[in-house]
Amino acid sequence: MIQLEGSHILSVNQFDLDTIQTIFSVAQRMQPYALRQRRTRVLDGAILGNLFFEASTRTRVSFSTAFNLLGGHVAETVGSGTSSLSKGESLFDTAKMMATYSDVIAMRHPESFSVQEFAKGSCVPVINGGDGSNEHPTQALLDLFTIEKELKEKNKDINGMNIAMMGDLKYGRTVHSLSKLLSLYKNVTFTLLSPTELQMPQHVIDQVVNAGHKVNIVDKIQGNLEHADILYQTRIQEERFPSQDEANKYRGQFRLNQRVYAQHCHQDTVILHPLPRDSRPEANELNDDLNTNPNLAIFRQADNGLLIRMALFALTLGVDSQLEQHELPVNWYVRK
Amino acid sequence: MIQLEGSHILSVNQFDLDTIQTIFSVAQRMQPYALRQRRTRVLDGAILGNLFFEASTRTRVSFSTAFNLLGGHVAETVGSGTSSLSKGESLFDTAKMMATYSDVIAMRHPESFSVQEFAKGSCVPVINGGDGSNEHPTQALLDLFTIEKELKEKNKDINGMNIAMMGDLKYGRTVHSLSKLLSLYKNVTFTLLSPTELQMPQHVIDQVVNAGHKVNIVDKIQGNLEHADILYQTRIQEERFPSQDEANKYRGQFRLNQRVYAQHCHQDTVILHPLPRDSRPEANELNDDLNTNPNLAIFRQADNGLLIRMALFALTLGVDSQLEQHELPVNWYVRK
Amino acid sequence: MIQLEGSHILSVNQFDLDTIQTIFSVAQRMQPYALRQRRTRVLDGAILGNLFFEASTRTRVSFSTAFNLLGGHVAETVGSGTSSLSKGESLFDTAKMMATYSDVIAMRHPESFSVQEFAKGSCVPVINGGDGSNEHPTQALLDLFTIEKELKEKNKDINGMNIAMMGDLKYGRTVHSLSKLLSLYKNVTFTLLSPTELQMPQHVIDQVVNAGHKVNIVDKIQGNLEHADILYQTRIQEERFPSQDEANKYRGQFRLNQRVYAQHCHQDTVILHPLPRDSRPEANELNDDLNTNPNLAIFRQADNGLLIRMALFALTLGVDSQLEQHELPVNWYVRK
Repeated sequence: MIQLEGSHILSVNQFDLDTIQTIFSVAQRMQPYALRQRRTRVLDGAILGNLFFEASTRTRVSFSTAFNLLGGHVAETVGSGTSSLSKGESLFDTAKMMATYSDVIAMRHPESFSVQEFAKGSCVPVINGGDGSNEHPTQALLDLFTIEKELKEKNKDINGMNIAMMGDLKYGRTVHSLSKLLSLYKNVTFTLLSPTELQMPQHVIDQVVNAGHKVNIVDKIQGNLEHADILYQTRIQEERFPSQDEANKYRGQFRLNQRVYAQHCHQDTVILHPLPRDSRPEANELNDDLNTNPNLAIFRQADNGLLIRMALFALTLGVDSQLEQHELPVNWYVRK
Repeated sequence: MIQLEGSHILSVNQFDLDTIQTIFSVAQRMQPYALRQRRTRVLDGAILGNLFFEASTRTRVSFSTAFNLLGGHVAETVGSGTSSLSKGESLFDTAKMMATYSDVIAMRHPESFSVQEFAKGSCVPVINGGDGSNEHPTQALLDLFTIEKELKEKNKDINGMNIAMMGDLKYGRTVHSLSKLLSLYKNVTFTLLSPTELQMPQHVIDQVVNAGHKVNIVDKIQGNLEHADILYQTRIQEERFPSQDEANKYRGQFRLNQRVYAQHCHQDTVILHPLPRDSRPEANELNDDLNTNPNLAIFRQADNGLLIRMALFALTLGVDSQLEQHELPVNWYVRK
Repeated sequence: MIQLEGSHILSVNQFDLDTIQTIFSVAQRMQPYALRQRRTRVLDGAILGNLFFEASTRTRVSFSTAFNLLGGHVAETVGSGTSSLSKGESLFDTAKMMATYSDVIAMRHPESFSVQEFAKGSCVPVINGGDGSNEHPTQALLDLFTIEKELKEKNKDINGMNIAMMGDLKYGRTVHSLSKLLSLYKNVTFTLLSPTELQMPQHVIDQVVNAGHKVNIVDKIQGNLEHADILYQTRIQEERFPSQDEANKYRGQFRLNQRVYAQHCHQDTVILHPLPRDSRPEANELNDDLNTNPNLAIFRQADNGLLIRMALFALTLGVDSQLEQHELPVNWYVRK
């Protein structure tokens, strides 16, 4: 169990199982507040520095909403052009400044390890909202949290489950981070389904295998999804392929729609995707006809992201035990 | 009377006279809060998703201020480049996500009917802040509210009034929407003053005439404004004309300044404009020398926009009857 | 002593010594709130219109944080592209609108005197956050406040001190404004150290000399910093020079690092810089090896900027005497 109060959240490598369970248990307690059934003002007056040097509406608004739901204010910076970084300021100097203004900082930046560099200059907790191709730890946590919740609904457990990861496993950082977190559990079977060119990197496979899990590397859907408890779909990035023809050939093999699901998955297979999904016809890795499939969990993932980020704010700022002491009634219309 | 609590506000076609009067009566009750004479926190803890996929400082800040004045937080997204829409996400998926984060959503988007499409995915009320050339219902409501208030000051009424609309009546969506709302009243005389190329579309004229109102279509100021209770000026968009020479010729005929007003209007004619007005010499549809004319109502329009948007938030979130229960004193300097 | 409640803050020329001392005394009282040792909600419900028509993360977030720390909401506009100004709206019209929405406005704009022009249309206090090459009065105040605090730590006073200003003294507006404020004090010795091409403008020198201060104009470090109580470093802008070779020659002479400091300053010389400092090797006017020098005050400057801006909001809105009446406990983790 690591100390979360006053700590930076930079990498999935920071977490052990106890810490993860602590985060998930606080996240679960956030649900009535996220659903507006209850309301807390435990962070009233606190300020989140929400620094998005790279655009990402989903992640940015998820952080800001999580903070607002705990009662705090958000100071937002979007885009690198608006920053002193473009005038040559170091990440260290930017951090010294932003830490003066904020009680906690969420940061996304296009360069790998930039958030870690930034954190060195900050005396307040920094939460990594994605540093280039390196890490996106809150995404990995919300993916894992979603898997745990979805399996629980079906009386299953992460220990012993079968997960299929599909698509671009080489460049998709979310599947790398999720695999590392799953390594902490017992007896997981990984089915890694991708074009040969886009296979999971060997160092991730090694970590999983060394932790005692089973890994199947395959390159087509047929016969490989029927035992999947979880199917984690990703985007195939066509710019990775030598030619458009080749890209089209592969893409056709990894698209998921209601017909493919019915034919190749079992009736309980839960579908995840890191979002956003590309709905343009030339991509279409997750067809809209799955929207009515109750096992499509992608919109519940967004809800869970909010809970995880609320939990991380409460834990790093040490207010997780005080939520109920700062409650006020909800006055307004609550969605059904 | 339509149900407003929990409803989307997408089009002026939704409204009947009773609904309009309900909105206006709540808007009127918002005035002491907008003027900082009183303060309410009825939406403390609620979150507005303020989605401006197209820039508009005036409308965006009007929505955010209206929400802040009721005590709520605002999560803002500006510009399409920062959005997952640019990665191919559907409006439906974006709406599912944003509705998780927000209690109510205000949205502007450059494409017609995009806000309607978005609203299908949202379980919280969506207010259309302008969808391309299609609709801008809160602008139409604030125009109508301003007309009602300004006429009342002069002991007049919308029923039986004479309104002149001037400029580009073909492409200006505000005059279309306002005409539709005015159709709900009785015995309005419309003077539609524009270059022939920029006449009001026939379907709008038909709706007005079928509702029993009188329409005069004219192409010059001389002799056509002397009975106007309201003069609604718009911008003439020069890019619509075959040549710059032709644009200049027309523009000169439709500019309004103190001299033209004194010569062609009567002393009570109230001047409106959808704003912003273009103050560059080549445009100048509403000269700055009118700023001291007490019948120039354009700045009162901005005030009224705030009241209308506060009313729509209170009504869609069902807190209109609770404003006074959540009052706190105003501590700070109040402008005179 | 000028009246601050309800007033615009546009230029350092507005201030006399009494007013400055009033601002500094309120700024000092803001410290426990800025450090999160105490919390006030004296501006709960008030709205800051934070208008940055030119990007500046540091100044923008400093204003927004200062307002949040007093309990208020912030409505932000960043970049000129998102504004009606690009559609030809006058600054007067923009001000009329924004003043309807806000209780106080902070504004930065790339054009000189634009904020003054804007303020004519605003019925709420406007604080100049930088108008092109003209003025940046809150920067000058925070520089002066930092100098006063740093000297006090060393039992010195502004009256009678020796300040060296170094770098581009021709185009750097901060050194112009600071010099004007220092003219209000007694017996200051100014050492103006710059390449001949970038000397302090004569009108600033005249003002300083006419106020009875001593001015030394020099062009190299050697022998000119040993009596400096304050060393105010600025950036040398290479684009001002006829050739890259010439720029490099000058730059080398005005870089500051630990070695230069040890050799040419005395052990108490306090280093300031308007920030951001350019850490790229080709600029490097203030080397990172100074970060551990206790006399490097640049990060304390950022803290002081927050205090000054909190003080200006409290004073212009007339709540400076009510801070303690609106206190609430701090619930969350407080940085050490």
